[in-house]
Amino acid sequence: MGDNKENKKNKKTKLTDVASLGEFGLIDRLTKNISLRHKETLMGVGDDAAVIDHGTHVGIVTKDLLVEGVHFDMVYTPLKHLGYKAIVVNLSDVYAMNGEPQQAFVGLAASRRYSLEALEELYAGMLLACEKYNVDLAGGDTTTSAAGLFLSISVVGRAKKEQITYRSGARANDLLFVSGDLGAAYCGQLVLQREKQAYKANPDLQPDISKYAYVIERQLKPEARKDIMEMLRKAGVQPTAMIDISDGLASEILHICKRSGTGATIYEEKIPVDRRMAQTAHEFNIDPTTCALSGGEDYELLFAINQKDYEKIKDLAGIHAIGHITGAGQGANMVTSSGQVVELVAQGWDSFKK
Amino acid sequence: MGDNKENKKNKKTKLTDVASLGEFGLIDRLTKNISLRHKETLMGVGDDAAVIDHGTHVGIVTKDLLVEGVHFDMVYTPLKHLGYKAIVVNLSDVYAMNGEPQQAFVGLAASRRYSLEALEELYAGMLLACEKYNVDLAGGDTTTSAAGLFLSISVVGRAKKEQITYRSGARANDLLFVSGDLGAAYCGQLVLQREKQAYKANPDLQPDISKYAYVIERQLKPEARKDIMEMLRKAGVQPTAMIDISDGLASEILHICKRSGTGATIYEEKIPVDRRMAQTAHEFNIDPTTCALSGGEDYELLFAINQKDYEKIKDLAGIHAIGHITGAGQGANMVTSSGQVVELVAQGWDSFKK
Repeated sequence: MGDNKENKKNKKTKLTDVASLGEFGLIDRLTKNISLRHKETLMGVGDDAAVIDHGTHVGIVTKDLLVEGVHFDMVYTPLKHLGYKAIVVNLSDVYAMNGEPQQAFVGLAASRRYSLEALEELYAGMLLACEKYNVDLAGGDTTTSAAGLFLSISVVGRAKKEQITYRSGARANDLLFVSGDLGAAYCGQLVLQREKQAYKANPDLQPDISKYAYVIERQLKPEARKDIMEMLRKAGVQPTAMIDISDGLASEILHICKRSGTGATIYEEKIPVDRRMAQTAHEFNIDPTTCALSGGEDYELLFAINQKDYEKIKDLAGIHAIGHITGAGQGANMVTSSGQVVELVAQGWDSFKK
Repeated sequence: MGDNKENKKNKKTKLTDVASLGEFGLIDRLTKNISLRHKETLMGVGDDAAVIDHGTHVGIVTKDLLVEGVHFDMVYTPLKHLGYKAIVVNLSDVYAMNGEPQQAFVGLAASRRYSLEALEELYAGMLLACEKYNVDLAGGDTTTSAAGLFLSISVVGRAKKEQITYRSGARANDLLFVSGDLGAAYCGQLVLQREKQAYKANPDLQPDISKYAYVIERQLKPEARKDIMEMLRKAGVQPTAMIDISDGLASEILHICKRSGTGATIYEEKIPVDRRMAQTAHEFNIDPTTCALSGGEDYELLFAINQKDYEKIKDLAGIHAIGHITGAGQGANMVTSSGQVVELVAQGWDSFKK
């Protein structure tokens, strides 16, 4: 044993590339030793946001990072849009808990390449999102970075205790819904990346990207679905489970199944896709369904409801029944338009696997 | 007017280097358009942390960034220490509000240079701090960066509403106290930077840094003064204003004066300095008082108390009366050991001015 220890010490330890784990594998490894001490911490790692007990209400806390060169490319990302999006993606997490966001906190590290005017643009976008969604920009930290721009936003929200909606509440035979349409944000990124390459090859080129306006806006300036949460509340329906679609529909369905201990079946023909997204996808020789399942960054809501609530929401605009929850043993599957059953796989956006 | 507008548009706009503003100037500019909408947001930008109304209690939210190459140097910063410090500096902000930290949220962006084992070390340090200070690591976001390591920590705490202590409550004739001793963290950094240069010049050199153990530990592994907050509470004393010393004593005194609308007078001979810090400072030909006033990163508490409370705490260990609050017109001054009166200037650590 002593020898082994020495050997181990003297040999250069073999280190593990985090890329071999992927984002979720890495998070599982890093958080496996966490134990919660405070009875007030109702939910820690493992949902869209943490939940803290305040008595009749709960507090909701999100944190999302946006990193230059990983989550955004300054060549085609206007700073005002970036600021807007940085706030919105956090609000989306609060709505996915069925809560109301109230305060935003901005961590900003920018290299000396960013002027005061650039950072003011970024702040203008953040304040615009705060105004639109009725949120206070209540604090933060501002510093330099050796290179690049890093945004770390946290949003604090609240909900009545009985309203909070976790990923874990779905039960067999619940119906699965999504809001809006899926896949467009990813197609927007494909267009922007292509135009960047074209610009690099020929800076004098003035490309006409107006026909891609919809998918580009979905990528650069997403909205959080506050309206959907309010519509469901007005209809008297509380989802049994809810998550926002940041990594792609397939990945989010698997999160709900894992946390709820269920399976799920969805139907390809029921997945809402916009005509403009489908056109762009075809242009890039990608199946629109693939964009919807794995594209990510749509920030739509995926939620399950008890069947008894179906009548209350079946005629509401902007939401779409795409399938249902099944027993755990049945896995998470999609019935394709041609009638085949394929297993859902999380191929969503994963910065660690790039 | 039309012409001016055109001119303005056609001329390349002159951009402002943020270095010309400094950290506080930049924050003032970026946050000047913020207005608060929620009555629950009791304190936004402008104190150690934001404060949110929950009825009988308040929630406290901090955010602090640690950026590789700006706040730490991987050549001499053990990752476990870095994780520990990243949590502690946020806890310090909660204690400075006279609150109890409860949940920590970790935003982590690391380049591919960081192995799983390296990130596990970092997490081990964060979890150690969470355990020691009885805080739940309750969420976060983990992603890659193009280069370097970025840590963005938020801590959520709570306090009874009547206990919360802002920077703004100091009144003329209050007494000013600091905990612990000041300037050592800065001296620790001086030693580490010198050793790094020596190592670069001759990697075979094995320097004996044991005589600097105290100042190095103050730099690499600071503690938050939970004990001081508890001691004051036990003594039945609530500070009228409090702040933690992250940027240096002078800068923090000016913060209290600005927010409280007061002046202050402190006495050089009363500033607590450790013998080991003073020795190191002399070795570097720096006045120990300068280290205490401008060094920063000590994470001690600076607080004001009403004179009527003096009897209750005058015999407590670990805190030191250094002066008193004066009227606004009198400015913030230090009486030197030789009897001169000098104005306090914020020359604290400012990443934007490097």
